[in-house]
Amino acid sequence: MRIGFLGLGNMGTGMAGNLIKGGHDVTVWNRSADAARPLAEQGATVAAKPADAATGADVLHSMLANDAAVREVILDSGVLDALPKGAVHVNHATISVALAQELIEAHEKRGLGYVAAPVFGRPEVAAAGNLNVVASGKPDAVAKVQPLLELIGQKVWPMGDDPIRATIVKIGGNFLIGAAIESMAEATTLTRAHGVSAADFLDVMSNSLFASPIYKIYGGMIAAQTYTPAAFKLSLGFKDIGLARAAADAKRVPMPFASVLHDALLESLAAGDGELDFSGLARVAGARARLKD
Amino acid sequence: MRIGFLGLGNMGTGMAGNLIKGGHDVTVWNRSADAARPLAEQGATVAAKPADAATGADVLHSMLANDAAVREVILDSGVLDALPKGAVHVNHATISVALAQELIEAHEKRGLGYVAAPVFGRPEVAAAGNLNVVASGKPDAVAKVQPLLELIGQKVWPMGDDPIRATIVKIGGNFLIGAAIESMAEATTLTRAHGVSAADFLDVMSNSLFASPIYKIYGGMIAAQTYTPAAFKLSLGFKDIGLARAAADAKRVPMPFASVLHDALLESLAAGDGELDFSGLARVAGARARLKD
Amino acid sequence: MRIGFLGLGNMGTGMAGNLIKGGHDVTVWNRSADAARPLAEQGATVAAKPADAATGADVLHSMLANDAAVREVILDSGVLDALPKGAVHVNHATISVALAQELIEAHEKRGLGYVAAPVFGRPEVAAAGNLNVVASGKPDAVAKVQPLLELIGQKVWPMGDDPIRATIVKIGGNFLIGAAIESMAEATTLTRAHGVSAADFLDVMSNSLFASPIYKIYGGMIAAQTYTPAAFKLSLGFKDIGLARAAADAKRVPMPFASVLHDALLESLAAGDGELDFSGLARVAGARARLKD
Amino acid sequence: MRIGFLGLGNMGTGMAGNLIKGGHDVTVWNRSADAARPLAEQGATVAAKPADAATGADVLHSMLANDAAVREVILDSGVLDALPKGAVHVNHATISVALAQELIEAHEKRGLGYVAAPVFGRPEVAAAGNLNVVASGKPDAVAKVQPLLELIGQKVWPMGDDPIRATIVKIGGNFLIGAAIESMAEATTLTRAHGVSAADFLDVMSNSLFASPIYKIYGGMIAAQTYTPAAFKLSLGFKDIGLARAAADAKRVPMPFASVLHDALLESLAAGDGELDFSGLARVAGARARLKD
Repeated sequence: MRIGFLGLGNMGTGMAGNLIKGGHDVTVWNRSADAARPLAEQGATVAAKPADAATGADVLHSMLANDAAVREVILDSGVLDALPKGAVHVNHATISVALAQELIEAHEKRGLGYVAAPVFGRPEVAAAGNLNVVASGKPDAVAKVQPLLELIGQKVWPMGDDPIRATIVKIGGNFLIGAAIESMAEATTLTRAHGVSAADFLDVMSNSLFASPIYKIYGGMIAAQTYTPAAFKLSLGFKDIGLARAAADAKRVPMPFASVLHDALLESLAAGDGELDFSGLARVAGARARLKD
Repeated sequence: MRIGFLGLGNMGTGMAGNLIKGGHDVTVWNRSADAARPLAEQGATVAAKPADAATGADVLHSMLANDAAVREVILDSGVLDALPKGAVHVNHATISVALAQELIEAHEKRGLGYVAAPVFGRPEVAAAGNLNVVASGKPDAVAKVQPLLELIGQKVWPMGDDPIRATIVKIGGNFLIGAAIESMAEATTLTRAHGVSAADFLDVMSNSLFASPIYKIYGGMIAAQTYTPAAFKLSLGFKDIGLARAAADAKRVPMPFASVLHDALLESLAAGDGELDFSGLARVAGARARLKD
Repeated sequence: MRIGFLGLGNMGTGMAGNLIKGGHDVTVWNRSADAARPLAEQGATVAAKPADAATGADVLHSMLANDAAVREVILDSGVLDALPKGAVHVNHATISVALAQELIEAHEKRGLGYVAAPVFGRPEVAAAGNLNVVASGKPDAVAKVQPLLELIGQKVWPMGDDPIRATIVKIGGNFLIGAAIESMAEATTLTRAHGVSAADFLDVMSNSLFASPIYKIYGGMIAAQTYTPAAFKLSLGFKDIGLARAAADAKRVPMPFASVLHDALLESLAAGDGELDFSGLARVAGARARLKD
Repeated sequence: MRIGFLGLGNMGTGMAGNLIKGGHDVTVWNRSADAARPLAEQGATVAAKPADAATGADVLHSMLANDAAVREVILDSGVLDALPKGAVHVNHATISVALAQELIEAHEKRGLGYVAAPVFGRPEVAAAGNLNVVASGKPDAVAKVQPLLELIGQKVWPMGDDPIRATIVKIGGNFLIGAAIESMAEATTLTRAHGVSAADFLDVMSNSLFASPIYKIYGGMIAAQTYTPAAFKLSLGFKDIGLARAAADAKRVPMPFASVLHDALLESLAAGDGELDFSGLARVAGARARLKD
């Protein structure tokens, strides 16, 4: 199929690469052209502007940083008008429920398909094509892109016909990650204060009751008290907890853990830790108890 | 070895049974004698009072409900005076750091060994001898009971020579469980408000990023919104979060998630949900958002 | 002086009335014209649209509901272009710091003065000209409107030359009011649970340590558990706590009380209490403890 | 009347002095005898031990530091057995509801009257006899001591016939004080971050909407960022918030503000600020936002 791909960050590059490996004709675009080079070497066509990647595409994928980028690149730069009627846009970005609603209407108005397909996984997982993909949208649109989603993910989780559903599952999932980090931060601060290192405590937990990727990966960084390099930046975690809180506010859902997380993340940012990995949030709990790092 | 075992609740019965299966000479005691019968049939001697189970024992195990029970049965009923000098007491109960400190001194004074060996796992896991056992105490004492701990657990996690260490690891672990439940409660309330059932959301989470026993077991109950029968009662979860908060207060460790958990658990108890499973805490988040069950 | 006045809600009507009583030539505008009638009878000219009230005015006052209304009426309807160069706009509304910054620039660009002059007080206080007015802006602009502010308020609190200053003082003040309400709500729920009515407890507090207007007025409604008629709606309190949280986020200021307030207000709104007085927030604390009203 | 007075701290000394000035025959006792000297010079008899101050007394007042001191001095040192049948004990200390219940029973058993009469006010207020006294107990017992309470306080607030009532009113009042301090701490951190000093902001608030002793006294210290000398120590504030939380737990009353206060106070103590005035709690909010003092 003829595929357009917008957004070649550390996630998008791997995802687009797997579509190329899958034998598809892929035209890529990225704000800074350099990011496109490695994909060009793999056979991708490089577009000068977003709309060029959309022109004539059967399917347009986008993996953009946040609401602002999606608004600018998808809604304000003529991309949707460049897409052939009947084409499907697959949005992999983590965005707000409010923007998702806007996108649904913008696509419907133009007779375009819209599939929300946010992904769980880090850059190396994206490169390996082993992401967890959560997808929802009109059945025919989802059916059309299903083979492409399978090139990107080890598993595709169908979430029904409303794109809002996959959008909120991704937001809820990122909140769960943040809550797990704060939970480990508080628990290890408690055990450290009583003489048990974060490493000793988390070794037990993440290999027994909590033996799962999130507790192993983030717990490993907390155990080592090493928060660089950042696989997922704390400042992005702050943005995602904000998406959860906005979605909660819209439906009048009190989320006290999200509020505590928000306040702890604000303290991290005030301390200048925004560029650390999300797990660097653990520094706040230790600092509040005045434990030495 | 000659073993005494005090406390035959739904956990203790399985644990004592595995010591008998291991070929040891086990004398059991329980407040209500009926609980002892099945073990008597497996070959256990039944003691009339705690001290009788301690007399002549090489090792005394106890699996009692809480601080009050441990204080009454171990400290106030002559058990420690009945134990032969050099005997080792293995305490499997989840108790406060303050009481653990008292127990350490009471044993030392009498030339008795004290090993803190709290366990993670539910009754059926205890019966199968597959618990996760966290153990700490003087090396010689731990070495002496190691073969017994291996009969009880699929794995024994050594935590060093201070019984406080295993005690706080257990307290920290139970806090992590409570925090995971509240996290899932808030996340599923958010997704439900946006049209995604708790079951659909948790199916993705507990089979990908959070594929671990805690998220599967408690998440399963939250997904089904079915909180009986209780494998671990909400009222006991409230007690354990209290142990975490007391240990945190003693060392001046702020734990905002523990505070939120405490307030949510108070609301559960006010609503009359104390007899539900710990995961029943999830009802509070839904009620606050005024979602229909 | 020739004065324009935009926004004749239950606050603005009283404020404009006092400017007329002061002998000024006042032209008023309100979205629904009916609200202008009583002022017309007092001698005000009624404008058909906002810009008409601005044309030829020495000073333009506005008392609008929220950011959206200020944006629409002041920024998007030609009002600033209708004001004579050198005229001063006095904004009495409680708005966000971000919008205040926009307004400062929009006025500067046009050679207009901008004075932030939010007010504390309820409608009857506004009618009596006894508001507390907090004012900041360029010295010459403030000096020009000082006599007018004194017609509106019993006291004008000078806050310096940056309009942001009065803006944040008002936001901080409204947060203090919300925090006082939640504090009384929790304290009275505690005393009620132990047999002391809210009325008995607040009678002591609001006549001794806390003898101040806020504790007397809001405490009186909490004591009576009567939250209508609403002098200041709970839904507006929610909006104002949002302004505080946005201003806090912008400067990385963690405000855990504001987060608790936000979650309690969300629960009030979920319960359908948005039209109650702000003090109706107290119903949440009682409901969480399952106390009968 | 023959009066015994136990506990001559900076509050008790002033209170006992006013009973002497009232023409009563007062026998005083204090753990460290030195504190009794100034009162001896005013005409008090000095007792060697608590029971001696109780022997033959018509009324026994006690103003002790906390639950532990009350338990030791009143319950464990024979004081109640030394009091003549029919005598009344007036307890001015701030104690837990649980201990108050114990005291009620201990007095009833011995045919003694028990009046809970906690006081609001600082040492200088106590010396001037201008405290606010909250009193509850059996009508005859209260009637008997009413003239004495009027020597101590500018106003006596009758709370009915159950001593628990005055006890919980005091606990609730101290919670309100702590909540007001945290509220001012967060509000001033917000305004400081936007360029308005704590002094400028609190000058407006504590002289308008919040014109009351608590906001003026504690607000004054926050405005000056000067937290010594301590009129009421932060460590005592931590103790009193603990009393509120224990009373709330006993009745299943969630108090999220009390939980936030507890966590902030723990951070103050971890930072070594326990000896500062209660208002020193404000340092935590500023530190979390990384504002320079």
